[in-house]
Amino acid sequence: MKHNNRGENPILNRIVAGTAESTRNPAGRRLSLGIGDDSALFRPRPAHETILTCDWFLEGTHFLRDKHPPDAVGWKCLARAGSDVAAMGGTPCCFLLSLALPDSHTGRWLEEFLGGLRRASRRFDCPLAGGDTTRRPEILINITVVGEVRTSHAIRRSGAGAGDLIYVSGQLGEAELGLRNFRRRKGRASRHNPFLRKHLYPDPRLALGQWLANRRLATAMMDLSDGLSSDLPRLCAASGIGARIVSANIPVVRVPDSDRNHGLDPLQLALHGGDDYELLFTVPANKAGMLPRKYKSVALTRIGKITEESGVVLLQESGGERSLIPGGWDPFRTKR
Amino acid sequence: MKHNNRGENPILNRIVAGTAESTRNPAGRRLSLGIGDDSALFRPRPAHETILTCDWFLEGTHFLRDKHPPDAVGWKCLARAGSDVAAMGGTPCCFLLSLALPDSHTGRWLEEFLGGLRRASRRFDCPLAGGDTTRRPEILINITVVGEVRTSHAIRRSGAGAGDLIYVSGQLGEAELGLRNFRRRKGRASRHNPFLRKHLYPDPRLALGQWLANRRLATAMMDLSDGLSSDLPRLCAASGIGARIVSANIPVVRVPDSDRNHGLDPLQLALHGGDDYELLFTVPANKAGMLPRKYKSVALTRIGKITEESGVVLLQESGGERSLIPGGWDPFRTKR
Repeated sequence: MKHNNRGENPILNRIVAGTAESTRNPAGRRLSLGIGDDSALFRPRPAHETILTCDWFLEGTHFLRDKHPPDAVGWKCLARAGSDVAAMGGTPCCFLLSLALPDSHTGRWLEEFLGGLRRASRRFDCPLAGGDTTRRPEILINITVVGEVRTSHAIRRSGAGAGDLIYVSGQLGEAELGLRNFRRRKGRASRHNPFLRKHLYPDPRLALGQWLANRRLATAMMDLSDGLSSDLPRLCAASGIGARIVSANIPVVRVPDSDRNHGLDPLQLALHGGDDYELLFTVPANKAGMLPRKYKSVALTRIGKITEESGVVLLQESGGERSLIPGGWDPFRTKR
Repeated sequence: MKHNNRGENPILNRIVAGTAESTRNPAGRRLSLGIGDDSALFRPRPAHETILTCDWFLEGTHFLRDKHPPDAVGWKCLARAGSDVAAMGGTPCCFLLSLALPDSHTGRWLEEFLGGLRRASRRFDCPLAGGDTTRRPEILINITVVGEVRTSHAIRRSGAGAGDLIYVSGQLGEAELGLRNFRRRKGRASRHNPFLRKHLYPDPRLALGQWLANRRLATAMMDLSDGLSSDLPRLCAASGIGARIVSANIPVVRVPDSDRNHGLDPLQLALHGGDDYELLFTVPANKAGMLPRKYKSVALTRIGKITEESGVVLLQESGGERSLIPGGWDPFRTKR
């Protein structure tokens, strides 16, 4: 946040006021210099590696100005980037916010946006360190999260070996169900609608990721951002192996009867729905006994096994087998 | 860079191929994990603080799609963010690239953009660590640079004291002169036009910043991104002091006669022109003798003195005095 004396003041003052308390958190105390200089300064922890990740969050691509509550935009832009830190088994330390706004959104919209951002920042113990602001007809957001993990404890996508068991956290397809529900509604969504919760306020599995990394239980890990059918092949490709998953074992979203009438199938939502931000990870068979069924009330479910042969095979409830075809979200293939 | 197996492949492959050699640099070897996983991993140097900064670089706001050479867009987006690291006295270590592109620009435009980015990455010894890509009608760029500085050696804006001498590097107004020249031209600018060099290919003063920090010569520092008349008051406000500068001492751009006919005044360009990315810094009077007239062929010029009274006063060549009124670029005040 470089411009600290003039025209940008109203925006910047709001951002600083709206997030300053987060610097009283333990992570915040490691920021030796925050907003207001050319750069921020952060004190890295000895014997740790620094995790770096950034994410676009753009009006029209990732959210809709008039339908998504600004509070949810604030929460979700940080939650998504935080999920990349969870996927390495790391701890978030601070974040940078790049925000482009129309003049019309520097009042109440910004206030509510900052409210959601502040709640996420507190929840993830991840204070604002700096950023950049500018004026623009569309709302553009980019978030960089800086995290840490004990040296050589990070869980990569590339470590899975044949015979490892494949797990996912939580229920899959919840965010997609919320999105479908959201799309059918007119006007701005309520932040209190329970079916929209996972779509609007995803909760990255930070504690679970850290636990798996600290105990060295997982050989490979990633977060499910584009859907299991898109993301599992990525993990397999990075590890140079394949996978067999059992459809009956996939923890699918519970679809209310009213939504089944809209043709929503739980398995399809679970396989191809994006935005769940659950963790997908592999565990050597001899360590599987150390995994609880739930970690801090989040279910851990074994869905299959890593195979030597490449490709991802889905064992269907009918007993048949088929290749799993990616059907999740890819911004360069279809526009959401 | 999270999506590594499917639709985004062509873009990502180009980015990786277009920048991979930079990871052979010394700084690149400290990236224990680069593009292709959920996050990048970086090994911080002991006894150093981590510098974090990010910058928008947006079509229509910071560059024009049809007039700026793509190569210059690639160079400048990294140079600007790198200048924030120079302004702390730090060394760049790696960067994250968030890139949104229309389909029409994933071919030759992207190739040339990556060429400029690669040259900057090599020049600053700052390899690509990761990022995010998406499709979008407009070209949107966000760059995060991660740097390092010896613990407690960073030069902030807030350290200037009354009696300190004020210095700038280089000649001021060169980038603004280039911009004016650029605006008068039709069609895409040539990358070889010497008058446009400073506007298209700014060179952050990394070596100078590091030298000032290592020797503890400067009490306060920032980079000149919005023009002296905007930036000096920011340094003064951060330090809680004022300044008196002497207009005759300001190292102004040499304006060719042809440009003088366009009403361009060197002093006005130097005071209010943005984008120079020179360093503005203060030095205690008793250390001024340690400053050379040039550091690695970049002129260092004393332009005034820090005063106890707040406000920035300009001593004019006529002998009169006036308050210096900010006239540089502020995206929330005027659209450039």
